[in-house]
Amino acid sequence: KKITILPGDGIGKEVTESGKKVLEQIADCFGHDFIFDEALIGHEAIEATGNPLPDETLTKLKNCDAILFGAVGHPKYDNDPSAKIRPEQGLLKMRKELGLYANLRPIKLFDELLEASSIKPEILKGADILFFRELTGDVYFGERGRKDNNDTAYDTMIYSRYEVERIAHKAFKAAQTRSKKLTSVDKANVLESSRLWREVVQEVAKQYPDVKVEHMFVDAAAMKLIQNPKSFDVVVTGNLFGDILTDEASQIAGSMGMLASASVGDTVGLYEPIHGSAHDITGKGIANPLASILSAALLLDISFGLKEEADTVIKAVEQTLKEGYRTRDIADAKTPHEKVLGTEVMG
Amino acid sequence: KKITILPGDGIGKEVTESGKKVLEQIADCFGHDFIFDEALIGHEAIEATGNPLPDETLTKLKNCDAILFGAVGHPKYDNDPSAKIRPEQGLLKMRKELGLYANLRPIKLFDELLEASSIKPEILKGADILFFRELTGDVYFGERGRKDNNDTAYDTMIYSRYEVERIAHKAFKAAQTRSKKLTSVDKANVLESSRLWREVVQEVAKQYPDVKVEHMFVDAAAMKLIQNPKSFDVVVTGNLFGDILTDEASQIAGSMGMLASASVGDTVGLYEPIHGSAHDITGKGIANPLASILSAALLLDISFGLKEEADTVIKAVEQTLKEGYRTRDIADAKTPHEKVLGTEVMG
Ligand SMILES: CC(C)[C@H](C(=O)O)[C@@H](O)C(=O)O
Ligand SMILES: CC(C)[C@H](C(=O)O)[C@@H](O)C(=O)O
Repeated sequence: KKITILPGDGIGKEVTESGKKVLEQIADCFGHDFIFDEALIGHEAIEATGNPLPDETLTKLKNCDAILFGAVGHPKYDNDPSAKIRPEQGLLKMRKELGLYANLRPIKLFDELLEASSIKPEILKGADILFFRELTGDVYFGERGRKDNNDTAYDTMIYSRYEVERIAHKAFKAAQTRSKKLTSVDKANVLESSRLWREVVQEVAKQYPDVKVEHMFVDAAAMKLIQNPKSFDVVVTGNLFGDILTDEASQIAGSMGMLASASVGDTVGLYEPIHGSAHDITGKGIANPLASILSAALLLDISFGLKEEADTVIKAVEQTLKEGYRTRDIADAKTPHEKVLGTEVMG
Repeated sequence: KKITILPGDGIGKEVTESGKKVLEQIADCFGHDFIFDEALIGHEAIEATGNPLPDETLTKLKNCDAILFGAVGHPKYDNDPSAKIRPEQGLLKMRKELGLYANLRPIKLFDELLEASSIKPEILKGADILFFRELTGDVYFGERGRKDNNDTAYDTMIYSRYEVERIAHKAFKAAQTRSKKLTSVDKANVLESSRLWREVVQEVAKQYPDVKVEHMFVDAAAMKLIQNPKSFDVVVTGNLFGDILTDEASQIAGSMGMLASASVGDTVGLYEPIHGSAHDITGKGIANPLASILSAALLLDISFGLKEEADTVIKAVEQTLKEGYRTRDIADAKTPHEKVLGTEVMG
């Protein structure tokens, strides 16, 4: 099995090292033969080649069996709205070129971290949400530009029937294996693209009569996620709303540093923490590598069908938390100083 | 002073009655002469006239000194994505026609409600955020439609320089009177309209050197609002992001039932609870009228400059909460049964 490692920018590099080490250990313990390769993306790639997704990277990605990705982004571009070449373009192009239309973001709280969140433990206990974020459509990929002498800027939110259908099917199928409840999030009281979204989800629903579907506006969903996270099970939504809601939902899992994601679609699968490049803590060696490690577990499970191996990784994370070890983001007042670990040691 | 009451749909009707009564009491106590008129909007207006914002309503609104509004919406349209006439069109047209480009949403927790939220009290205590949501631009008003034989739907996210400038100025001015900190929220790493937004906010910032500006991506903001609400003071953002973030932030105030808002711009001001029509509890007499009552306080303050009168209303709300009275949404396990009030009695 060929695995391409894409460390990317900021803490992406730091945490992906741990994810990779875990994959190496698994290969060792279970007698698998994983072949690793590395490639450039994002700011790193711009610096080296001028292109946030060099052709060489794309070729490697198209010819491997799974991808472990870190993050992209750099404050340099964030503070310069007129930059023409940006790290994020590499990420978006990669998602599109690899047909990674379904981004799965499981939000699950390890019992040990019940106290790490800003939300009350009794509200969180038992919360377990699986997000399906559409990843290759919406305002991320619609036409955009300037007019009126640069004084007006626009982006196009756009969805086609087949795009909604394929992600809806994936979400309904997942709902069938869980508690048979699906929440579809849109803004159909205002947006035409959301009305198409709702129409198609209603149609697809007919093929899954055992799944109870609820349609919710994105503003209400943003509120309800915090008010009563346990009222959600599987959630399906568009690219932009998914971006916002899953970051918000990270608080349900105690910290963004715990959340893994899988992006799947037509061919190869890509696995990444949902946190970004986090330049404010880059280079300090304090980033939480568990999201990358849990992403490696998703890789083993979804791309390679190695269920036992994936469970072994998850149990190792659980065990480590049970023994009281924390990175700074998930430590609380009760964590003894010597149990607060840096990225490498935690990895 | 002429005040137009626009009850609208669902619980809008129920709570606005309380808001109006409070305005009547204030007029009585302070010797003001408020002349009330009522008009139709939303589903109610569609049923009566076929138009969610009848001309007669618009004429009344253009000729009064302030508007107290309830909510619009009806499940009938929500479940029918193909409906051509919708209650929300009335709301959006009203905002546009009256030039209500700045929606102020103050998020402040009454001390008595520290326990009512799903967020931990120690995270909330002292949180005090003032949102400026742009209200007459963005994807709410860009061109939208269908193509490819109805199989593709699109909406246009669009901002022009002057739209960003005028809301930014309002937000900077407010920041100057508070803790001199402004957070501007966008998605400039992906969206061109956000890059224009960021550019313009950076420019306007030069005129307010005493205000510290921070730019934040909307996904990060959605996370941080829950993780550390006290890190925000004044927030300025676009129409769609503002819709999502302020509903989410309602959890900081304990309940959506507590949040008032003011929409201002070129002429008359409009005041409304941020909760919607809430058809699930309509007709039960249990809706929390405090958001409408606090909207009436904003009306007195902002549109009429009646600061003392506004404070009197806010103090009355505080006093009522201090005495232990609650509506269902803000009651907790410790609230005695006889202190849980319905809409009318609370009003
Ligand atoms: C970096 C950015 C373009 C990206 C997105 O918005 O999709 C990130 O926030 C994510 O969620 O993967
Ligand atoms: C009813 C709806 C169109 C409206 C909006 O999205 O603006 C509401 O959610 C609000 O926030 O006032």
